[in-house]
Amino acid sequence: MKPSHIEHIGIAVKSLEEAIPFYEKVLGLECYAVEEVVEQKVKTAFFKVGDTKIELLESTDPEGPIGKFVAKTGGGMHHMAFAVEDVQQALNDVQEAGCQVIDKTPRNGAEGLKIGFLHPKSTQRVLTEICGNK
Amino acid sequence: MKPSHIEHIGIAVKSLEEAIPFYEKVLGLECYAVEEVVEQKVKTAFFKVGDTKIELLESTDPEGPIGKFVAKTGGGMHHMAFAVEDVQQALNDVQEAGCQVIDKTPRNGAEGLKIGFLHPKSTQRVLTEICGNK
Repeated sequence: MKPSHIEHIGIAVKSLEEAIPFYEKVLGLECYAVEEVVEQKVKTAFFKVGDTKIELLESTDPEGPIGKFVAKTGGGMHHMAFAVEDVQQALNDVQEAGCQVIDKTPRNGAEGLKIGFLHPKSTQRVLTEICGNK
Repeated sequence: MKPSHIEHIGIAVKSLEEAIPFYEKVLGLECYAVEEVVEQKVKTAFFKVGDTKIELLESTDPEGPIGKFVAKTGGGMHHMAFAVEDVQQALNDVQEAGCQVIDKTPRNGAEGLKIGFLHPKSTQRVLTEICGNK
């Protein structure tokens, strides 16, 4: 695969209400969208800096993936996502290169993008996502 | 402050020798530099994707900051760095906005850049760096 840029960095927080003012008032970024992703049991807040988005994630359910992560760690950087043109092709490429994946075919992510996750067993303990338009 | 982009993402790994092939062969990035930073007790490997660098960090000393992080967590995403024009101005701005900092004045980082760290107490548990040419 040939990623063009970092599409986003996912950051788990205890509270969007507490976190958003830090990103806006201290770091000088602008929150341009807040969206609930029911399937992932999170509320998200998006910021843009250069080509990259920062996606803050607040859990809506202690049993969801972000709820468990925050309970274990207190919150922090959760995943990074690479932008590609064709997510299916990228998922095929990484598997051919010996990487385990969570998603063998793309699924629907936030903002109308196709997404797929690589398996952390293969990625040096960084949860790694691939994002693209198809 | 007004960051222009994500300058780099710092990722702590147990071994550069194991991690570099994942970033090159699976993710399709190219390692363009390996550098030891004696002061930080790390060896680093750099990759570029879009405007952003990925900086892999292997500890050279269990008592160094990355050595301790890897012992505690097994490794993973360690910090993110925002690019600004003037690091001193950005450090002043964030303090005026109520943010604690580790560095009140810039110090020298890798690749000839000036850097400063914000204090994780103020940053929602994300170790946050500011980088720039002055």
